[in-house]
Parts: sequence; C-alpha cells; structure tokens
Amino acid sequence: VPSRTLGPRGHKDNIARPLRKHSELELSMIDPYCTYLLNNDIKAIYVNGTTSEGKSLTLNERKDIVEKWIAVSRGRLKIVVHVGAMNLKESKELTSHAAKTGADAIATLPTLFFKPQNLDALISYCKSIASLAPDLPFYYYHLPVMTGVELNMEDFMKEAKKEIPNLVGIKFSSKDLVDMIGVRYAGKFNIVYGCDEQLLGGLTMGAQGAVGSLHNFMPAVYQRMIGDIEKGDLESARKEQIKGQQLCRLMYRYGNLLGGNVAALKSFMPLVGLDLGPPREPMRPLTETERKQFTKEMNDLGFYDWKPAKL
Amino acid sequence: VPSRTLGPRGHKDNIARPLRKHSELELSMIDPYCTYLLNNDIKAIYVNGTTSEGKSLTLNERKDIVEKWIAVSRGRLKIVVHVGAMNLKESKELTSHAAKTGADAIATLPTLFFKPQNLDALISYCKSIASLAPDLPFYYYHLPVMTGVELNMEDFMKEAKKEIPNLVGIKFSSKDLVDMIGVRYAGKFNIVYGCDEQLLGGLTMGAQGAVGSLHNFMPAVYQRMIGDIEKGDLESARKEQIKGQQLCRLMYRYGNLLGGNVAALKSFMPLVGLDLGPPREPMRPLTETERKQFTKEMNDLGFYDWKPAKL
Amino acid sequence: VPSRTLGPRGHKDNIARPLRKHSELELSMIDPYCTYLLNNDIKAIYVNGTTSEGKSLTLNERKDIVEKWIAVSRGRLKIVVHVGAMNLKESKELTSHAAKTGADAIATLPTLFFKPQNLDALISYCKSIASLAPDLPFYYYHLPVMTGVELNMEDFMKEAKKEIPNLVGIKFSSKDLVDMIGVRYAGKFNIVYGCDEQLLGGLTMGAQGAVGSLHNFMPAVYQRMIGDIEKGDLESARKEQIKGQQLCRLMYRYGNLLGGNVAALKSFMPLVGLDLGPPREPMRPLTETERKQFTKEMNDLGFYDWKPAKL
Amino acid sequence: VPSRTLGPRGHKDNIARPLRKHSELELSMIDPYCTYLLNNDIKAIYVNGTTSEGKSLTLNERKDIVEKWIAVSRGRLKIVVHVGAMNLKESKELTSHAAKTGADAIATLPTLFFKPQNLDALISYCKSIASLAPDLPFYYYHLPVMTGVELNMEDFMKEAKKEIPNLVGIKFSSKDLVDMIGVRYAGKFNIVYGCDEQLLGGLTMGAQGAVGSLHNFMPAVYQRMIGDIEKGDLESARKEQIKGQQLCRLMYRYGNLLGGNVAALKSFMPLVGLDLGPPREPMRPLTETERKQFTKEMNDLGFYDWKPAKL
Repeated sequence: VPSRTLGPRGHKDNIARPLRKHSELELSMIDPYCTYLLNNDIKAIYVNGTTSEGKSLTLNERKDIVEKWIAVSRGRLKIVVHVGAMNLKESKELTSHAAKTGADAIATLPTLFFKPQNLDALISYCKSIASLAPDLPFYYYHLPVMTGVELNMEDFMKEAKKEIPNLVGIKFSSKDLVDMIGVRYAGKFNIVYGCDEQLLGGLTMGAQGAVGSLHNFMPAVYQRMIGDIEKGDLESARKEQIKGQQLCRLMYRYGNLLGGNVAALKSFMPLVGLDLGPPREPMRPLTETERKQFTKEMNDLGFYDWKPAKL
Repeated sequence: VPSRTLGPRGHKDNIARPLRKHSELELSMIDPYCTYLLNNDIKAIYVNGTTSEGKSLTLNERKDIVEKWIAVSRGRLKIVVHVGAMNLKESKELTSHAAKTGADAIATLPTLFFKPQNLDALISYCKSIASLAPDLPFYYYHLPVMTGVELNMEDFMKEAKKEIPNLVGIKFSSKDLVDMIGVRYAGKFNIVYGCDEQLLGGLTMGAQGAVGSLHNFMPAVYQRMIGDIEKGDLESARKEQIKGQQLCRLMYRYGNLLGGNVAALKSFMPLVGLDLGPPREPMRPLTETERKQFTKEMNDLGFYDWKPAKL
Repeated sequence: VPSRTLGPRGHKDNIARPLRKHSELELSMIDPYCTYLLNNDIKAIYVNGTTSEGKSLTLNERKDIVEKWIAVSRGRLKIVVHVGAMNLKESKELTSHAAKTGADAIATLPTLFFKPQNLDALISYCKSIASLAPDLPFYYYHLPVMTGVELNMEDFMKEAKKEIPNLVGIKFSSKDLVDMIGVRYAGKFNIVYGCDEQLLGGLTMGAQGAVGSLHNFMPAVYQRMIGDIEKGDLESARKEQIKGQQLCRLMYRYGNLLGGNVAALKSFMPLVGLDLGPPREPMRPLTETERKQFTKEMNDLGFYDWKPAKL
Repeated sequence: VPSRTLGPRGHKDNIARPLRKHSELELSMIDPYCTYLLNNDIKAIYVNGTTSEGKSLTLNERKDIVEKWIAVSRGRLKIVVHVGAMNLKESKELTSHAAKTGADAIATLPTLFFKPQNLDALISYCKSIASLAPDLPFYYYHLPVMTGVELNMEDFMKEAKKEIPNLVGIKFSSKDLVDMIGVRYAGKFNIVYGCDEQLLGGLTMGAQGAVGSLHNFMPAVYQRMIGDIEKGDLESARKEQIKGQQLCRLMYRYGNLLGGNVAALKSFMPLVGLDLGPPREPMRPLTETERKQFTKEMNDLGFYDWKPAKL
C-alpha cells in the first residue's frame, strides 16, 4: 500500500485486484474500478490473484481480464499478473500471454494439487515459469495457509535466485514474520506483505510494500498507517492497524458463513460505491437478512468514521 | 479391487488409471495398459484421478484421455471420469464432455483453492456438477490429506443425497474409518476405499470396493487379500496387507525425494512391464543412481516373490 | 475387550478404568466398580490412564488409586499402571511404586510438554522408566492426537526393543492403522487398540485386544463384535461397530461442550448404574438441562436396546 | 527486555529464567546467574517457565527454586512465578506457595493434557488459580505451539477480565500478531512478547515488553533493538532482529537434534560465562563433536562481534 518510500531502500507500489459480476465476467466494470483505484493513490494491481478469484476463472477468462486491465490502465497502474494454476502447462501459457500483452511483472503460487515438497521441486517449477518471461520481474507468491506449501522462504529465495535471474521478490502472505525477515537477510529482494491484519508488523519487520484485499475498500486507512510509521508514530499506526484487524475478524466470520473470505470481501465493495458482483461458486453472496446484519455490524465498528477511501 | 462380491450387499468393480509419457501424452500406451488391466481382472478404471495426474493435465488433454480410454476399452472396463479441477466452470465442461462421450460414472474432488468450508458449500458445488449428468452415477472423491477439506462425510452424504439424486457413493481416501463407517450408516452408498496401505481395515469396516494406486502394479496381492477376507482368513489377509503397507512406506520415501508419491509410482510400473513415462512437473523421475537403489530396495522387500500381477 | 482369543497368536485382556468423585477421590467406589467390571467379563484394567483422568491427579492420589485397585481386585483383574506424567522424575517414582505394590504391567505416555522429538529421545525416555521395573511387561501408550508425538511406531518398536527388553507391546490409540500394522511387522508385540469407534478395523488389521473408554459402559456391545469377528461374520460386527461410532459422535459433541471427552464419559456411567462423580477441572459436569437433553439423545440412539452391559 | 519505556503507556520489566545442573538442581548457581542478569539491566525473571524447564521439575523442586530466587534477588529483580502444570491441584499448591514466599506475580499455562477446549473452560481454570493470590498480578501464558490451546486471546482477555480482577496481562508467545493486537484492543493489558525471533514486530504491533530465552545470553542485542525502535530507527532495529532470527534458526536445528530447543539453549549459556548444566530428559546435551560444530557455527554467525552481553 505504501505510496511513498519506506526507509532507505524501500519502495513499493500499491496493488489491488480485478472483478467479476454474476456468474459471468462483466469486463466493463474494470473502467470505474480503475478510476477508483487511481483516485485512491493506488500504484499497481495484482491481477488474477486470490481476491480477484483468479483460480475460479478459466484460462480464457484470465486472459481477457489481463488484456482489459492493461487497456484500461494505460500505464497508470503497474500490472502484476498472477499465473499460478493447477498445472504448469497452463501457467506457462498464461505467462507467455501476459508478457506478450504488456504486463509489468509475473507472479505465481505453487501448484495446488501436487504440491512442491522440497526446495528443488519449487525452484524447478518457478524456473519453468520465470524463464518464459525473462525480461519481466518475477515474484513468488507465498500463501501457505491456502496452499499447504510451508517451505522456508529464506532458503528458497537464496537458492532460487541462483537459478532464476529475474526473481526480484516475494508476495509474502504468512503471519510468520521470522521467515520474512530471513528473506531480507537472504538478498536484495522486494517483499510485499499480504496479511492486512498485521501489516504494521510486516512493514516494521522489513516488508517494503503491501498487497492485500482490504486496500480495495479502505486504502486510506493503510496509507495513514504507513505515513505514521514513516513519522515514527507507532501509537497512531497501531490505531489504524486495529481497524484493519477488527475488520478482518468480521470478514473471517462472514467468510466462514459464505464459504470463503473473498465472498465476504465482495460484500464490502458496495460500501465504497463499487458493486463488483457476487463471488463465484463454491462461495455464495450474502442473503438479504445477512446483508442487513452485516451492514449493522460495519456501522457498529464505525467504518465510515474511519474515512476509509476517497470516493 | 474386489473381483468377487464382499458380503451380502457388497460389490465393487476394480479401478485403475491412465497414463502419460514424457512431458506430452502418449495416448498409444493406453492400448497395452488396458490389456494389462483386463488380464489382471480389473473391472473399472478411474480416469484423470490422482495417480493419473489429472490435475497436471490441461482441459483438452483430459478430454483426449477420456475419449481414448472409452475407445480402447470397448465396454470391457467401466469408465469413471474424475472431473475435479480448480474452478467449477471447467469441471462442468468436463462433466458434459464425459457424459456425451460415454463415461459410466462421474466423480469429483472439491475445488482446490477456494475450498468449500461448510456442508452447504460442498453440497451446492457437487450439485452443480452432478446435475449436468443426471443419468450417470455420481461419486464424491474424499481426499482430505491433499485437499484440506475435512468435513464429516456421514453428514455430507446424508444431506447431499437429498439434493443430488444421482449421488451413489464415495471414493473414500482417508485413514479415518470412523467417518467411513458413518457413511455406511448414512444410507445405501457405494464406498470405494482409497488408502491401499490399510485396505483390509477399510473393507472390514464397510467399504465395498477399492480404488488406489497400488492396484496398478500389484493387483494380485490385493485380490488375494480380498479372497482371504471372504474366506474369513484374516491372518492371511494381514500378510498380504503388510506387503502393501511396506510398499507404501517405500513409495512415500521416494515420493518425498521426487516431489510426490505419484512420481514414485511411475517408477514401479516398468517392474510389471509397463513404462508409462516420467511424471509431470513439479515432480521429477528417478535419476539413474536412484533407480539402482530403488530396484535394490524392491528386491530386498521381495517384490517378485509376492507374485504381484499376471504379466 | 476380547475375552476370548482372536486368531492364532492373539490374546488380550480387557481393560477398564478407575474413578473419582466430586473434586476429591472417593476410593470406596472402586469396590462396586470392580464388581461391575468382573460381572462383565473384563479381564484387566488400565489404571491412571486417560479416561481415569490420571493426569488430573496428584502424585499421591495416583499412588492411592493403584494401591486400592490392587487391594480390591485380589488378582481377579490384571492391573496395568500408567505412569506417564509431565516430568520423568515423577514417572520414575510412580513406576517404582507400582512395581513394589504389585502391578502386573507398566505403561507410559511420552512427556507432555517437552515432547520427545525423535526416536532416540523417545527410546531413551521409555528406557529410563522401563528399566526401573525390569520384571514387569512394559507398554508404550501411543496417543498422538493428545500428545502431539507423531513418530512412526513401526520404527520405534523395532529400535526400542533393542534397548528395552521388557517392552512387550503398545496401547495404540491412533486412527492410523497403517502404522499399527507396521508394528505387527516389526516384531512379536502385543497391540491393544484404543480407538473404540473403529475397533473393528483395528482388530482385523492386527490388534490383539482393546483398551478404551466405551468398554466401561457398553462392554457387551464390543464383546459381541469380537465374537462376530471370530465367527467371520463381519456384517454383524459392523452393526455393533456402528453403535460405538454413533455413541462416540455424541460423546465428542458433549465433550466439546464440557471441555473434554472424559467429561462426557462420566455422564454415561450412571446409565449403567455407576455414578463415578463429576470430572475434574478444567472439565465440568452436565447441567441439569444438558443432562435431560443428553438422556433424550441416548434414548433416541436406542442405547438400552443395545443390551450394553450386564448390570 | 525493555529497560526503558516504550511509547506512552508502555513499560515492561525484563524477565529471564533460572537453572538446573546435571540431573539434580544446583541451587548455588542462582547466585552468579542473578548477578549476571542484574549486570545486564534485566529487571525481572520468569521462574519455572519453559526455558527453565519448570515442567521437568517436581513440585518440590519448583518450590525450592522459587524460594532461592526470592532470597538471592532481594527485591532487585521482579519475580514472576509460573505455576502451570498437568493438573490444577498442583498449580493451586504452587500458587499459594508463591504468594506466601513473596513472589511479585503469578502466571500460568493451560493444563497440558486435558486441554481447555473453549473460553469458559479456560476462564474457569485461570480463575481457580488467580483467586488464590488475589493481591498479586496474574498473567496468562499463551504458547499455542506447545500447548495446542489455540483460543482467540482478544476474546479470552475481555471475558476473563470480568471474572478475574487481578488479570493484568499476557505472556504472548505466538507469531500471530493479529490476535495480539486484538488484546491491546480488548483492554488495558500488559503484553509481554515471547517470540524472540520476531520481537521487533511484536513490539511495534503493541507488546510493551519481552520475555524470552535469548535475553539470557544476548540481552544487549535486544536492548539495542528496543533503543532503536524508541529512536524511530527501524532499519537499525531490523539489523539487531536479524541476529536474533539467525540465532533462532541455529537453535531450532540443534534443538531438533537434542530433543528440544531448551537443550540447544543450555549450550549457549557457557558462551557468556554461565554453565547452567545439561537439560533434563527427554532432552540431551551436545556431544563433544556436536559442541565443536556448534561453536564453529556460532563463530561463523559472528556471535561475539554482536557484543551480546556485558560479562
């Protein structure tokens, strides 16, 4: 989320995510979405990642979304394309497509069924992808709670760098900050942190940027928090962080009900004026009764008093 | 694996799996593979499941394999097509394709990234698939150790049956026999058991058949075991089961080295005369040195003395 | 639970557990409890194990219970004393006390806080205990779901036997029957199985006896099941097993409410005429309202129709 | 570890731990140990906690250690006594003893075998202990990785405070900073953080102090880090934190070999001049060969260049 630099070597653009409407894509919604993100000082987006339900889209849908974002953004947002899939062959196809279409960077999860079980397997897998777009920066997407791949990232980054020259960083979405600071020690990598609910800890422990779900509808909260860190005002930063943490607790509770956190997130977007449609199966949208209860709970938290975003 | 009936209501066909060669499919290998399975009294195959690396294949490759098996088998093997994928849209497409092509049954894993987090989500997901092939028997594929979906199957089957009329059974690949016997209690379901290393326990606790990796290269061991159970000779059955268990320990050890158990399994097949090629990434084949060590360990176990298969 | 032999080499005595009343011990209850167990063909008891809340008792309370059981039983029940504790020093003291007092066998869990992290550590720990009672049979108590010690038992038993001559068997309380049959392969060990809800699978996969909570109040169900296995009538055995499985589901549900399965179990005992008092903290007994609901659910299951025990 | 204040409301004393020698206690070592801690600006000690192997000591040994520390410290160190054990009865006895002997505060883990499974059970358990020393501050010791008790701490602290007036804080030893900042939100609690390898994240996210193993032999590193945070120099703080993180990786590696991290820790102490003897079983000390390798690795890390402590 940082729109400004974070310490001497830090600098990371902000990253958000695309959309879907009903069961089918509604690509035209990308126009107002892009405008909203730019108005909120977001600098980059992470396309076809977790929040954007990239894994619930078909190969062709993923390509359509990448093309649309590149066309709409016209260079105003950096476009990081996530190419992770269930099989390497499709990830390779997505990589070549992204490079040809004009993406700014490539990122990937590990394979999701046959999981890489040791460093060699993960390095070999990443190399197969990264080598198809050798001129683009390559990021590994570390999300152990959903992938089950829990390898040590300090070791991975150090060893992988020897094989993958364009490996520049990691999207680190684990609460384990110990492993994350190990990545700082392992080399000059760009670390973008993905656990919005403890971003303050992530940034102070060495992440240079953020990419996460909550930046979509409360970017101003995180931008103020980053400003507070830069000013050395940790007490104020904690006040902003508590907002993110409380919101995540609400999100997890509704996510459990709806079949996934992303389903809950989709419900937040209309609160900032962007209705990006329902989630895809196996998640479901809120019922009317649930939506009323949800809106009440958001009000009880004081969401609008937080000045979450520029509308 | 049972080629004969198992108790009053039991009866389950045998099920094995397809193949791949090098990095690309070698569909012509399906001919000798089919002959081998028929020679070994296998009654059915489970196409595009775990052992056959279905999740490492593209949509079109999966379709090609289904078509080839149906053509080669000419009704001599029952064809159960696994359609699970990362997103529901592709699973639906695979289901319609399988039904149209002449499959005998449909089976599916849950989605692998956005996991169904409660019974409702899982039922809704299965219903979306099963309803596209209403005239075919539908199986749920329960494989919690790889999917992370650990819902109670007794409750699931009971509730799902109300919504999915063609739900007839479950491929149960968990060591938790408590939950499995609950499925027996929940209704008249066909339970095929997937943990080869404790199939004896699975069958005595109520599974009516088996589908697993080891049946590919040691079908005779399992058929003898089933015969022993039917004769009430549990001590002999245990001797056969120990062979399966010891072989699995070897498989896990090599699987850990090669990035997955399926990679180890691919190494077993040439021992019974079928070279089905290397595994796909992120797994790797044995090196020459490893293959020598592996062959030695198989000999130390006494593999050929077990009379594992008719060649 | 078997009161008769199970196949050629099998033979295992039945094992039940002691009691507590209110917050303080009510040692006099051991007299009617012992009579009840003998009336129900139980052959042995496992003193100060899980169900008997041994870990919630002080060192001296544990000694008192051992002494009382030995005195009351007068050789009619085999007395297996569990000596596991949080620290080895106390376990040693309990071992020497049990040997001196006249116990028939010793058993132990691993330490519960600093857990043995590898085979060597576990072997060394067991050796320190077993060597203090070299003339008594020694059992390892494998209960990974509560201890977190998940080492492979086939390897453990094989290696431990070299160091611990009086290691004769294992109380195996894990659903992983693969590892259990490995123990059968590892040597001539006596395996008593502890997961009542899948005892059928445990016995057919190679356990020679049972020790578990449910034998306390439904011994007849398990004895019939064992008889069915011996007669080769697996279908009837499954019907009895389903009773155990359904009862366990109820127990888990109430256990979750009361802070532990043992708390639920304590509620079952009055149903067969033995009120052994409430559980100790951190568990709690049923409230009056809960007890009514619980009794209703037991009736709905048809508990008394099962002829659970001789009263 | 903070010897100075940390932000407006922060203030936390330093906490270290006692010792054992050979298999038996060597109470006389507490004198030089206390002197060393005072020389290093440590303000408090946590007696009979994890690092001090409190759970491997008998009831009487634990009392002896408490008495000795209070006698030696003569008020110069705050004495926090950990009373957690396997059963509540002994924990109560330890609590009354600590209060009578002159401890400054009480802390407890949950029970380790029958684990509190819901908030009510945990609150009731803590209340039973805290109410025996109503005039002393009471801390809950949250160590989920070893206890398996993973309840939400924000909810626990908020609800527990209603029942336990002397509940003043928490020793938070989990990497989950999200739950920790929730405790800040839940009330005015004193949070001391226990994961040395990410203390920087813990302090910026809201902990007011630290209690951990590494403060024993590299207190100066952590004190410099805290000074850096206060000055707003996060880049320098990270450099100190990386030292702690690298040392923990070494500790885990040796801990795995020796049967526990505490065993590795015992090996570090002679490096700062304090030989506190070997660990207790089930852990073991380094062999001579291992010690040489270990010393080499410590030198490779540059341990002495870090100026870890005043000797």
